[in-house]
Order: sequence, then structure tokens, then C-alpha cells
Amino acid sequence: MIVALAGGVGGARLAVGLASVLPPQRLTFVVNTGDDFEHLGFAISPDLDTVMYTLAGVGNAVTGWGRAQETWNFMSALGQLGGETWFRLGDRDLAVHVLRTLALRRGISLSEITRVLATRFGIKHPVIPMTDSPLRTRVRTDCGELAFQDYFVRRGCRPRVQGFRFAGSRKARVPSVLQRIMHSGEVRAAVICPSNPYVSIAPILSVPEIRHWMKRRTFPVIAVSPIVGGAALKGPAAKMMRELGAEPTALGVVRHHGSSVDAWVIDQQDAKLQHAIEREGKLVIVTDTVMSDRGKSVQLAKRVVSFARALASER
Amino acid sequence: MIVALAGGVGGARLAVGLASVLPPQRLTFVVNTGDDFEHLGFAISPDLDTVMYTLAGVGNAVTGWGRAQETWNFMSALGQLGGETWFRLGDRDLAVHVLRTLALRRGISLSEITRVLATRFGIKHPVIPMTDSPLRTRVRTDCGELAFQDYFVRRGCRPRVQGFRFAGSRKARVPSVLQRIMHSGEVRAAVICPSNPYVSIAPILSVPEIRHWMKRRTFPVIAVSPIVGGAALKGPAAKMMRELGAEPTALGVVRHHGSSVDAWVIDQQDAKLQHAIEREGKLVIVTDTVMSDRGKSVQLAKRVVSFARALASER
Repeated sequence: MIVALAGGVGGARLAVGLASVLPPQRLTFVVNTGDDFEHLGFAISPDLDTVMYTLAGVGNAVTGWGRAQETWNFMSALGQLGGETWFRLGDRDLAVHVLRTLALRRGISLSEITRVLATRFGIKHPVIPMTDSPLRTRVRTDCGELAFQDYFVRRGCRPRVQGFRFAGSRKARVPSVLQRIMHSGEVRAAVICPSNPYVSIAPILSVPEIRHWMKRRTFPVIAVSPIVGGAALKGPAAKMMRELGAEPTALGVVRHHGSSVDAWVIDQQDAKLQHAIEREGKLVIVTDTVMSDRGKSVQLAKRVVSFARALASER
Repeated sequence: MIVALAGGVGGARLAVGLASVLPPQRLTFVVNTGDDFEHLGFAISPDLDTVMYTLAGVGNAVTGWGRAQETWNFMSALGQLGGETWFRLGDRDLAVHVLRTLALRRGISLSEITRVLATRFGIKHPVIPMTDSPLRTRVRTDCGELAFQDYFVRRGCRPRVQGFRFAGSRKARVPSVLQRIMHSGEVRAAVICPSNPYVSIAPILSVPEIRHWMKRRTFPVIAVSPIVGGAALKGPAAKMMRELGAEPTALGVVRHHGSSVDAWVIDQQDAKLQHAIEREGKLVIVTDTVMSDRGKSVQLAKRVVSFARALASER
């Protein structure tokens, strides 16, 4: 079994590839919930939704978030009535937020309602939030400490980042379904999807049980670099790295993750960094990591899985 | 000043006419909230919305509820995910439910959020819910006692009606803004719009302060019959009357309202009932009450207002 840690867009794209390569009983997705928030009375889980929508084939490939063939009449009517429209909620997208909010209010856990929704979307692989506890990414910036969506969407990532805090992480517990998988002894490798290291992967690793499980691991951890050619394919990862004084390259990401990753998959554009990364004590493969279509996601997933198998069999 | 009591469609249509005849400081709408309910986590006020949408010119003239140029992508996505779709919520319509629900959850009263929404819709006349308290119409039927929307929408008014109960009416208080109007001494007449006597008007009159105010009134009450030619133009009023052993005619409605109405406006199709209604001790005018377009609403409103003025000046 492979456990894949995923954030939003990049994570979701690799998820599609992985899901087509491995059957449901051999692949579990653990998804970031640090950027979840309550907005307009709805419980919103952007990364869970992006992973679900993408796996279900109903995601918006252009924006990377929300649903395909979306309409915006709710948002438009809300704006006309003076409501908040900085966080765009499409008409179809609302269905998930309404059902999730209702379930949480009835005391159903986030992992359970995610399981129900994923099943209704026809998703066969387990998609599990990293925690059912409220764990919220806070961004320390030159404009003060901001809630993640305030920084990310409302302010369009403009404030200069000084650091991050994962509020609630100390008390956060993993969902029992994930706990069972972690302690099953069946995990042969973990894959860190090409997601933002600071606000997608770090929140997952901030959950104490996950962090300890990863530290004591006997399986290899393979990561796909979210930085290609010195830029993030999507999102503010490179900008954050620069602001935090890190080198905005695949090598910078490797150094950031340090000992929590054993082996790296980097893009062919970054082939020149291979030796520097190997000097950090990491195994490296170089391949095309830009998942511009489903075929490329599958291709990359195949490379990642065979890399993981090779590493796991060596142990 | 005229106070108009209104339910849904018929009430909203006369409201449009009245609003074009009388300025805001001389006309107040008091709207039924007995069929309000919580659904999918939203606080829904169907009659308030119908009155607001119709006054704002954004109502759906065909259905009589919801908004014009509506889309249904939320509902469709919700249905695909196994959510409840028996109560149809349009994409644009949702904006009002979301804003109202948020406001109520923040402790803002229904009358206050209604005022805010009506203002944003450009409505100048006060639109006031009959109460800010939870007062819910319950329908006693051969299938047991049902919540109003369960009877009305989910079961399509099919169960046989045995009676009604207005749960919470004893403790219900009128909003302070309405209380000020009631005690201002400026009300010269009340108009009962052509709304269902059992489930639109009776709930309003079940609010103790409104009932007592109407009983001790020194102003005339003029009602427009919701029954025309032995049928309701919209909704289950005639069916309810039959099931309750009342004559489903304008005369039946007159008898139902009894002493709470002084004067009646009936349709020309019911001209033959004029003398029978007069024998009940009521003043009657006969006119075209079928408000098939805005012009007809205005025409009827003019008749009602001049009737009210004549009656008020006689006192």
C-alpha cells in the first residue's frame, strides 16, 4: 500500500495518475485540511474538494479549483445583495459545501462525510482528511498574522510571508480510518505529491501522529518537486520560498523537506540539480513532471510507483 | 397609513399594486412567517421572499415563488450527491437564504435582516415579518400532524386536512418596528390580501398582539377574496375549505373570517354572492380581482385603497 500526501492542484493531478496505476486497496490519499475555513456559514475544504473533483473527473481543469461547467448565479446574486464575493463559490460547487456543513453540524466527522461524498462521486480510493480536528494554517506576514484564505484568496498572496503556524496542530488527531492504515504495517511507501511545501505538506506533517509515524518509518518517502525550473507551476510556493530566504528551486524544496523525504522526482528542466540533490543524500530520478493532461499524470505516477517499489524492495 | 397582511403569491401581487398607489410612509406590509422552516441548513422564509422578490421585480411570475431567470445547478449537483431536492432552491434564490441564515445565526432578528435585504433589493415600503419568534404552521391531516412544507411541498397538499396549529404562537411577539406602527395611532385601515385564509392569514392573526390589535381596532379591515369562481387562483385554499366542510366560495371565506373583516372585495365572477355576503353584515365591492399582470394589480389596489379611504372617513 502507498499513502500519498496531497494538497490542492498538483496533488490532485498526481492523484489521478496514481489512482489509475494502483487499485483502491493499495493506495490511500491523505489530504491537507489546513486551509479549510468557515465562510458564509459553509464548512469549506478546498484541498479535499480539489482532490475529489479531480479524481471524479468533474474538476475545473483551467482554474484548478471548483467544478467544470460551473455557473456563478449564486455569487452574482449574493454580490448584488452586498454579500461577500471574494471567495468564489460556484452553483454546482455549493452542493458539496451544503452537504458537508449539514453533516458536520450533525456531529458527523469530516473524514466520514468526505468518505460519503467521495463514494457518491464514484471515487473508489480512500480520500482521507489529515485530521478531523480543527487545524488551521495561519500565515505570518508583514500585514500581521492572517487566516490562510485571507492571505491566499482575499489578498491574492500579496503580503510578504514571514512564517506559518498550524493552529490546533498539537491537539489534532488523525481520523481513525487513517490510524488503522498507519498501524496496519501494510504501508510500503509514502508519496509526497507536488504540493506547496509550506501550506499543503507542512500542515499534514504538523499532525503529531503523522509526524511521529513518518519519523519512525521503515518505508521510503518519495516526493515530487512542486518547483520546476525555478517556479511553482501553480500557486505561491516559489514566492514564499524567496520571502523566507530559501532558494526557489527544486534543491530549495529538497533542503526544506530535509530528512522527511528519502527520494526525489524532479523535472527534466531541473536535471542540472540532480547531483546537488544527490549530495544532500537523496536518491533522485529526473523525468517529465509537468502534468498538463491525464496521460502525463499517469506517466508520472507510473515512474513514481516503480521508484517507490524499487526503494521499498531494497529495504 | 394602511397595513396590508400578506401571504405568498396573491399577497405579493396585490402588494405590487398597493406599493404603486401608496408611498412608503403610508403603506406597511406584514407578512406571514408560519411556513418558514430550516432546510439544508438554511433559514427559509417563503412568503417574505415571494413578497420581496415580487416587489423588487425579480420574482418568477410563472411559478409564483423563487426568482426570474433562475438556474438550478446547485439543486442538480445536490441531487447527484444524494441530497434532498423536494424543496427547490434556485441558484440565485440561495443568496437570500445564505444571507438570512448568517444574520440569524449572528443574533440579528428576522425583521432586521428582512429590512436589510429589502433595502438592497431597492424596496422602499416596509416589509415586516409578523413575528421574529419561531411560529410554525402545523397541518393536522389524515397522515398525522405535518410540518407545513412537508404537507405543502413534499406531499403536494395531498393529505386530507383536518385542522391547523400555529406552534409557538402564544409566545410570539411582533417585531418592535411593527409594534411602533400598531401603536402609532396612524393606521387608518388594514387590508387582508387575497392569501390563503388558513395558512397565510390565520398565522398572522394568531400572533397575540396582532389579534388583540385587530379586535380593538377603530379602523376598517378590507379583505380581497382569495377564492374566485369557487376555486383558489393558486394554492390549496379551496381544497382545504372542502376538506374542512366549508363552502369553497367567496362566501365561505367571508364566513371563515367572520368579524375580523368589515368589508370585502370580490371578483365579478362572484357577483351573485354579493347579497349573501352583505347579509353577513359586510360591505362589498365587486371588481376584477384576477391580477394577471401588473396593470391589473394596480387597478385592484386603487379600488381597495379608495374603498378603504371611504370606509375610514365614515368612522
